[in-house]
Amino acid sequence: MSEPLLREVHGLLLRRARLRQGKKLEEVAAAAGISMQYLSEIERGRKEPSSEILAAVCRGLGSNVSMLTKAAHRQYLQYLQLRIIDGENTGESTELHGLQSASQQTQITTLLLAA
Amino acid sequence: MSEPLLREVHGLLLRRARLRQGKKLEEVAAAAGISMQYLSEIERGRKEPSSEILAAVCRGLGSNVSMLTKAAHRQYLQYLQLRIIDGENTGESTELHGLQSASQQTQITTLLLAA
Repeated sequence: MSEPLLREVHGLLLRRARLRQGKKLEEVAAAAGISMQYLSEIERGRKEPSSEILAAVCRGLGSNVSMLTKAAHRQYLQYLQLRIIDGENTGESTELHGLQSASQQTQITTLLLAA
Repeated sequence: MSEPLLREVHGLLLRRARLRQGKKLEEVAAAAGISMQYLSEIERGRKEPSSEILAAVCRGLGSNVSMLTKAAHRQYLQYLQLRIIDGENTGESTELHGLQSASQQTQITTLLLAA
């Protein structure tokens, strides 16, 4: 895998948000209407939550999916920076080497973003 | 629902990126190793792709999940702005009314983001 999986990144962020709020699994799971075990698996990136469940967990943390997408993007950027610092260069597509291909990234962003 | 579902936003963005590149469903589906029908359902927000499939579709478009998360966040912000322009106020959590609750959003972001 060239990037972390999205469910792993989401899980990490949701767990981090919960711990910063000093909340227990039970509390957030109850607020989201899911079991504690399920929330734990989501946080560890082992279960792929539906978009509905993901939204419910975000709400259970007093947040929303919009903020999760923002945090996820920052997390991916951190990952890219770490790879560059490590000097990793596996010869795969350069699009992942953000700082080395800013113009290419801009191009990709332009393709993805709304007019 | 207070926000669009993440799979709907992802579907919209993937479809938009494909059309901007002038690519057909067949082409991107083949590059991602999935069926054309499945890609079509993902684009319409009807199927919840796994994180692995999502990454494969992004790669099939010459992009990556990092860029998708960035585009998704922008899409959510556009949605929030449209709601505010429309004057919609349903009495639900104010966290969605971004411009009216910037300090609250900052607080949420701080909670979600890495140290």
